[in-house]
Amino acid sequence: MTSLAELCGHVAAANRALAEAGLVTLSFGNVSGISHDRGVLVIKPSGIPCGEVTPEQMVVVSLRDGITEGGLRPSSDTPTHLVLYRRLEGVGGIVHTHSPFASAWAQAGREIPCFGTTHADHFAGPVPITRPLTDAEIAGDYERETGEVIAERIGELGIEALRMPAALVRSHGPFTWGADPAEAVGNAATLEIVAAMAWRTLALDPGAPPIGGALAARHFNRKHGPGAYYGQQV
Amino acid sequence: MTSLAELCGHVAAANRALAEAGLVTLSFGNVSGISHDRGVLVIKPSGIPCGEVTPEQMVVVSLRDGITEGGLRPSSDTPTHLVLYRRLEGVGGIVHTHSPFASAWAQAGREIPCFGTTHADHFAGPVPITRPLTDAEIAGDYERETGEVIAERIGELGIEALRMPAALVRSHGPFTWGADPAEAVGNAATLEIVAAMAWRTLALDPGAPPIGGALAARHFNRKHGPGAYYGQQV
Amino acid sequence: MTSLAELCGHVAAANRALAEAGLVTLSFGNVSGISHDRGVLVIKPSGIPCGEVTPEQMVVVSLRDGITEGGLRPSSDTPTHLVLYRRLEGVGGIVHTHSPFASAWAQAGREIPCFGTTHADHFAGPVPITRPLTDAEIAGDYERETGEVIAERIGELGIEALRMPAALVRSHGPFTWGADPAEAVGNAATLEIVAAMAWRTLALDPGAPPIGGALAARHFNRKHGPGAYYGQQV
Amino acid sequence: MTSLAELCGHVAAANRALAEAGLVTLSFGNVSGISHDRGVLVIKPSGIPCGEVTPEQMVVVSLRDGITEGGLRPSSDTPTHLVLYRRLEGVGGIVHTHSPFASAWAQAGREIPCFGTTHADHFAGPVPITRPLTDAEIAGDYERETGEVIAERIGELGIEALRMPAALVRSHGPFTWGADPAEAVGNAATLEIVAAMAWRTLALDPGAPPIGGALAARHFNRKHGPGAYYGQQV
Repeated sequence: MTSLAELCGHVAAANRALAEAGLVTLSFGNVSGISHDRGVLVIKPSGIPCGEVTPEQMVVVSLRDGITEGGLRPSSDTPTHLVLYRRLEGVGGIVHTHSPFASAWAQAGREIPCFGTTHADHFAGPVPITRPLTDAEIAGDYERETGEVIAERIGELGIEALRMPAALVRSHGPFTWGADPAEAVGNAATLEIVAAMAWRTLALDPGAPPIGGALAARHFNRKHGPGAYYGQQV
Repeated sequence: MTSLAELCGHVAAANRALAEAGLVTLSFGNVSGISHDRGVLVIKPSGIPCGEVTPEQMVVVSLRDGITEGGLRPSSDTPTHLVLYRRLEGVGGIVHTHSPFASAWAQAGREIPCFGTTHADHFAGPVPITRPLTDAEIAGDYERETGEVIAERIGELGIEALRMPAALVRSHGPFTWGADPAEAVGNAATLEIVAAMAWRTLALDPGAPPIGGALAARHFNRKHGPGAYYGQQV
Repeated sequence: MTSLAELCGHVAAANRALAEAGLVTLSFGNVSGISHDRGVLVIKPSGIPCGEVTPEQMVVVSLRDGITEGGLRPSSDTPTHLVLYRRLEGVGGIVHTHSPFASAWAQAGREIPCFGTTHADHFAGPVPITRPLTDAEIAGDYERETGEVIAERIGELGIEALRMPAALVRSHGPFTWGADPAEAVGNAATLEIVAAMAWRTLALDPGAPPIGGALAARHFNRKHGPGAYYGQQV
Repeated sequence: MTSLAELCGHVAAANRALAEAGLVTLSFGNVSGISHDRGVLVIKPSGIPCGEVTPEQMVVVSLRDGITEGGLRPSSDTPTHLVLYRRLEGVGGIVHTHSPFASAWAQAGREIPCFGTTHADHFAGPVPITRPLTDAEIAGDYERETGEVIAERIGELGIEALRMPAALVRSHGPFTWGADPAEAVGNAATLEIVAAMAWRTLALDPGAPPIGGALAARHFNRKHGPGAYYGQQV
C-alpha cells in the first residue's frame, strides 16, 4: 500500500509535470490523487504555481467530510475533484488545466470530434462537453456542481470512465483522469495534442467527417482492449 | 517605504520577466513602476532590449515635470505611462508590449470578448479597445494622447482600473497595469493567454457568444471580490 | 558493411532526433533502418518514448518471416515498415510520426499541394494521401494493409520512391523515408515545415494555386537532379 | 576599415543568429555581407546548416566576376545577393530565409499590409511581393533573375531601399537587408513577427483596413526619420 508521503510525492510530481509539459501557466491548473484505503485525496494547494510545488505543500482532504490537514488551503477546485472520485469508477488521479486548444473548444461550446487515430488511440469517442450550469448552480456550490455536470455527461456515454478519460467543462476548460495521477497528466497532454490537431483539421475542412467506427475501434483496442498488442508486456 | 534603488531593481526585474515570458521581442515593450512618495516613476531606457536591462540603467522621471535623472533616455512611451499613473487610481506598475495575439486583436480593431473562465478570472468584462487617435492627436503630443485615450476608455467602463487591468490601443498593442510592476507583468501574460484562447475560439465559431454574467461574476469574485476564496490567506 | 550494432546505434539516434525535433510526443512515432545484407530491419520497441531509446533496446526483425530477436516487442507499426521496405526501391530508413500539421492534413483527407519552393526543394509534386482502408482491411492485418495502401499510392505516381519520400495515411498521419534513417528523419522534419506553411497559405487564400511546373522542377532539380548544384561536392 | 577576417566573423555570427532566432531550419537560408573597398561579398557556403557555420567556412566572392576564394561552394543564392548589392543603395548585409509566416504570405502571393505600429516602426509601407518569374527567367539564370525582380519591385516603390528593407519573392520566401549583416538579421526577425501578426489580424477580420498614413508615418519617423527620438543618442 502506498504511504501517504509517497502519494504526496506522486501528486507533487504530477503537478510539476503538468507545468513542464506547458499545459498550465502560473497557477491555472491542479492535479490530485486518491487513497481509498485512507479515505483521503491529496491535492495541490490553491494559488501556488504548479511548477513549484513540493510534496510537503500537498493538502490532504478527507473524502467523507472534506476536512483538510495541513496549513495550506486546497485548490479551490477541490469539490469538483471530490465529486469525480465518488462518481467515476476506477479513477485514481484527476487533472484540471486551462490548456490553450482544449480550452478553445470548451469556450466554443463544442465537443472534439474523433478525426483520426491519434484521438482514437486514447479516447473511445468524441471528447464530450458538459451542459451549461444554471444560474442557480453557479450561485450555489459552484465547484461541486461543476463535478456533477462532468459526471452527468460521462454517465450519459454509457462507457467506463477510464475509456473516456476527459471532458470539457463548457466555457471553462478540460478535466482529465486516469488510474493514477501520472496517467491523468498523460491524458491531459494527449487531449491538448488531439484538440490542436482537430482545430487545425477543421481549418482545412470545416465539414471534415469523423473517422469510421471500425478504424476508431481498431486503434482504441490495440492499446486498451482485451487483445491489446501495443507497448511491452508487464 | 521602498527605496529608489529597490524600485529600480523591481522594475528591471519586471522588464526581464517580460522578455523571459516571450511577451516582448527585442525592445518592443517596457515596464515602469511608481513611487508616489518620491514623486517619480522608474522606467526602462529607450531602445535597450527588455531581457538585458540592469537596475542601474533604469531611468527616474519626475511625475511633476517629466524631467529625468541619469544618462539614458527613458522609453519613448514614457508620456503614456505618466498619463496612466495620473488618471488610473491604485496603479503602481504599467506594462506595454506588442505581444502576438493581443496585438492582432488591436490591429483588427476588436475588443476581446469574455469567452470563458480564464478571462473572467482576471478581467471584469471584455478587454476594451481605444478609439482611433485623430490626425491632430497623432501629429501632436502622440505618446501623451495615447495615454489619454486609454484613460478615456477605462473611464467609460465605470469600474476601478484594477478590475480591468488592460486595454488594447487600436492599431498598436496592449497596455496592462497592476498594483506593482510584477502584477502588471502577470496581467500582460494573462492577457496574451486570453487573447490567444479567444482567437482560437472564434476560429471554431465566428459567432461564439460571450459567457453569461453569473459565471463571469462568480469567477472574477472568487479571485478578486470581497469574499475571495482563491489562493492562500496572507 | 555497417555492423548490426552500428545500425542499432543509427536507428536509436534517429528516434531520439525525432523527439528532439518536436516531431513526436511520448511514444507516437518510430524510426527503422534496414540491412539488406543481413536480411533484417532494426526498429524502435513498442510503447517506449522515442526520446529515451538506447541502441540496446532496438529490436531486430527478420525481413523474411518477421521473427524478432531480443526481449522487447517491436513497434506495433512494424508490419507497415516491412511492406514499405519490400515495395519501395532504394529506401534504407523509414519514419512514422503524428506530427501536428502533417497529421491535420491527413485528418482532413487532403494531399498537400506544392505552394512554394520550400516544398519543391524536397518533394517532386504534391505530398500524396492514401485511399481509405476498407473495413475488411482494418479488421484484417491492419498494419500490413497500411503499408500496402502507401505503396499503392506511391506506385500510382510513377516516380522513384526517393523523389517523393513521404505520404499521408488518411485519418492517421505521415510516413516518410530516405536512403538511410537520418535522411528519413530529415524528410519528416521538412514535411512538417511544408505542411505548416501550406496550412497557413490556405488560411490567407483558400483558393491558392500550386506553383508552376517550371519553378517546381527547377527547385527540385537544383537539389536532386543530375545537374544538382546545391550543397557541397562530396 | 573592417578586415576581411572580421567581416567573415560578422557574417558567420549573423548566420548563427538566424538559426538561434528560429528563422531558418537546417540550411534553408543564408546571410551575406559586403566589403565595397575590397570588391567582395562574404556568404555562407551552400548546404551547411546556418547554426553551425564558422568564420573559416565563409566564402569570399568577387563582386566583379563572381569568382570565389576558398574550398567551399558559396550559397546557391549568391547570384541573387550579387544583384541586390549592385542595385540597392546603402545595403551592407542581406538575409534570405524560408521563415514560416513570411513564406506563407509569399506562397499566397500577397503583400503584407501595414495593420499596425509594429509594422510601421520598421517598414515604410506594405511589404512588397515580386511579380512571378517567367518560364524563360526560371530556365535561364534563375538566381540572378530572382535578384532582378526584387530590385525591380523595390525600384517601383520610389523610396530608399533601407526604408523598405524587405521583399517577398512570390511562391518562395523573404529577402531582407540592412546597413550591415546584423541589421539585416534584425529585419528578418521583425518581418516574421509582422507577418505572423498580420496573418492573425486577417483571421479576425478578413477585411481589416491598413492603418492610416499619419499613424504609420509618425511611427516610422520616430525611429528612422530625421527627428527620430527612439533609442539612445550615439
